[in-house]
Amino acid sequence: MSAISKIQQGSLISPKGFAATGVNSGVRETRNDLGMIFSEVPAESAAVYTTSHFQAAPIKVTQDSLSVEQKLQAILVNSGCANACTGKQGLQDAYQSRKSLAEKFHLPEHYVAVASTGVIGEHLQMDKIASGIQKLQPASDEASAEQFETAILTTDLATKKCAFEAVIDGQTVTVGGAAKGSGMIHPNMATMLAFITTDALISAEHLQTALRQVTNQTFNQITVDGDTSTNDTVVVMANGLAGNNPLTPDHPQWDTFMAMLKEVSAILAKKIARDGEGATKLVEVEVFGALNDQEAQVAAKEVVGSNLVKTAVFGADANWGRIISAVGYADITVNPETIDIAIGDQTILEQSEVVAYSEEQIIEYFKGETVKISIHLHLGEGHGMAWGCDLSYDYIKINASYRT
Amino acid sequence: MSAISKIQQGSLISPKGFAATGVNSGVRETRNDLGMIFSEVPAESAAVYTTSHFQAAPIKVTQDSLSVEQKLQAILVNSGCANACTGKQGLQDAYQSRKSLAEKFHLPEHYVAVASTGVIGEHLQMDKIASGIQKLQPASDEASAEQFETAILTTDLATKKCAFEAVIDGQTVTVGGAAKGSGMIHPNMATMLAFITTDALISAEHLQTALRQVTNQTFNQITVDGDTSTNDTVVVMANGLAGNNPLTPDHPQWDTFMAMLKEVSAILAKKIARDGEGATKLVEVEVFGALNDQEAQVAAKEVVGSNLVKTAVFGADANWGRIISAVGYADITVNPETIDIAIGDQTILEQSEVVAYSEEQIIEYFKGETVKISIHLHLGEGHGMAWGCDLSYDYIKINASYRT
Repeated sequence: MSAISKIQQGSLISPKGFAATGVNSGVRETRNDLGMIFSEVPAESAAVYTTSHFQAAPIKVTQDSLSVEQKLQAILVNSGCANACTGKQGLQDAYQSRKSLAEKFHLPEHYVAVASTGVIGEHLQMDKIASGIQKLQPASDEASAEQFETAILTTDLATKKCAFEAVIDGQTVTVGGAAKGSGMIHPNMATMLAFITTDALISAEHLQTALRQVTNQTFNQITVDGDTSTNDTVVVMANGLAGNNPLTPDHPQWDTFMAMLKEVSAILAKKIARDGEGATKLVEVEVFGALNDQEAQVAAKEVVGSNLVKTAVFGADANWGRIISAVGYADITVNPETIDIAIGDQTILEQSEVVAYSEEQIIEYFKGETVKISIHLHLGEGHGMAWGCDLSYDYIKINASYRT
Repeated sequence: MSAISKIQQGSLISPKGFAATGVNSGVRETRNDLGMIFSEVPAESAAVYTTSHFQAAPIKVTQDSLSVEQKLQAILVNSGCANACTGKQGLQDAYQSRKSLAEKFHLPEHYVAVASTGVIGEHLQMDKIASGIQKLQPASDEASAEQFETAILTTDLATKKCAFEAVIDGQTVTVGGAAKGSGMIHPNMATMLAFITTDALISAEHLQTALRQVTNQTFNQITVDGDTSTNDTVVVMANGLAGNNPLTPDHPQWDTFMAMLKEVSAILAKKIARDGEGATKLVEVEVFGALNDQEAQVAAKEVVGSNLVKTAVFGADANWGRIISAVGYADITVNPETIDIAIGDQTILEQSEVVAYSEEQIIEYFKGETVKISIHLHLGEGHGMAWGCDLSYDYIKINASYRT
């Protein structure tokens, strides 16, 4: 595996041949609400979606596009309206949006994916979307990427982007991405959208395998409030312009590519968790010594998702009883006698017994931006991580607001 | 099935031959912290426990007691210390508590069950427990029952009791109960303890079947914050003093007995939900038309447990998008096109489409003590209910407090 390095101010236009933009279409008052990603050439593409029974209309359209050639050249994203629970009209609207974008950029319709985030149960304002599409002028500069990054936000407090590069087959291969997280005041729910671009040469089939594996370790391991949206989508486009030999699991640098994909995904996922509604901190839970990786991931996600752990972190309380309790109800194998728990660098519990620790140092540690909880089960080699945020008064404030 | 009727001010001493009491042992400053239930004669008994991997020491001792003859004559309960995650010492302490009570009341040790609620990871103060046990004087009057009901509370704001009676085989058969809910400021978690008494004649085997069935429909269908405690326990004692013929599923009045057991359990469960930490309202979710009862229960519990639904209720927001989203991520069969949702008497969604409803009437409805959400899936005959509470600023306040 070669070294991978983070690109300062890198974004989804860092890989060769990608452009982006964002505009205000009028669905929202002044903020950008319509964005697009464009690849100079058709890109091998893969996607994963929410497991909700109520997958929104744009997800169905994107699945339809990918089913033809597993290639995309453009992604259209709107915020302000999720186009979810909108019936036949909603599906028609999503197809019409795809068609409008395809016509403007002279693309086959199935080279266009669409994604939406915003209010559930309301219809897209198609006149505004249509005229917004006419204004889209993707470009490969940082300012244009930022227009896109802002266009996809809802109540997110910050844009979310990053990029990594590595040398593969003598060529620089780059992976970049942008994402948005939780949630919407008016009204609805945390929708996670993430878009990853790369100039690597790789088939859609291998890309899909890679994306699923990485998503399970990153995006699927974050939780803000345990509610799964109707619109969650991660799409990755690989346009092959880097000039490397085709990447397959047998390629000597497969791990290098996977490392970049995982780093981009993990960074975006952590940014989403840190920017959860009302969050004051990122919480990172790492589980060692589980029977296998999957069980470690399950345990980590139970702990990071526990309301009682989240409020304890908000209250700067080294409440290991809540941590062990969350491990206790996780559907995994546990030996109740062999649990270690550490908060930051301080061990709190060793072989399920409390050890002497400094309450003051812990309280000091809780003042930081990130709280790390480590758990060792001493059963096997399984390792997993999960990310979330604390549960604060502001979460209640944001989510108890009247929609009116 | 005969009529069952609620006994005004009924409690767990309403059935013949039961007595109770509660005292301050000194573990807590002034409030009662040690209580007991006593039956004049050994009672056929059954119990269900938390599924946590970290079952507390008292649960192991109670299981041990019941494994001998499935009979109990006394239950000792302390609050202030959960005796959970306390290792071998904790187990020894629980056995010693059982022994002290058995000696004082001249009972075989295995006729005594023990239960604890309170701080995790601290040891029982055995000197105080021992001298507290010497002060216990159970009696069959309302004041003594109330001493017990208060002794088991932690941050509960109110005691929880009820009783029902019915005529079976010409005899009055009574079922009564007491419970405590969530949670502890210093520090830990929601522990649910419920104790049910009856003078019905029924074998421990049938009682266990009945308890499991009723628990699945009641106590297991409440959620305050999704965290499962290390100490949750429901115990039922049946001393047979009512003089009915033995109750079995073939007895013509089996359903009458089950109805009483279910009503007592449902009322205690709802009282626990209503008294959840920071709760301002009881939330009741009823699901109709699921593929089967189990799927209906799963869906109801997902909706009532959703943080976004809970904050919407706190904010008096008829946010059906959050309700349908919670149904959407429930692990059940759903037809996304055929969902009805009503809040109180007002239909909001019909066949997955929004219908005209009065936002003002909904806001008025949300001001009440109970918010009822009804969901029809239109797939089958499955029916299920779940209970919870809203998520308020006070939940954060209570749970973010420093333990110090």
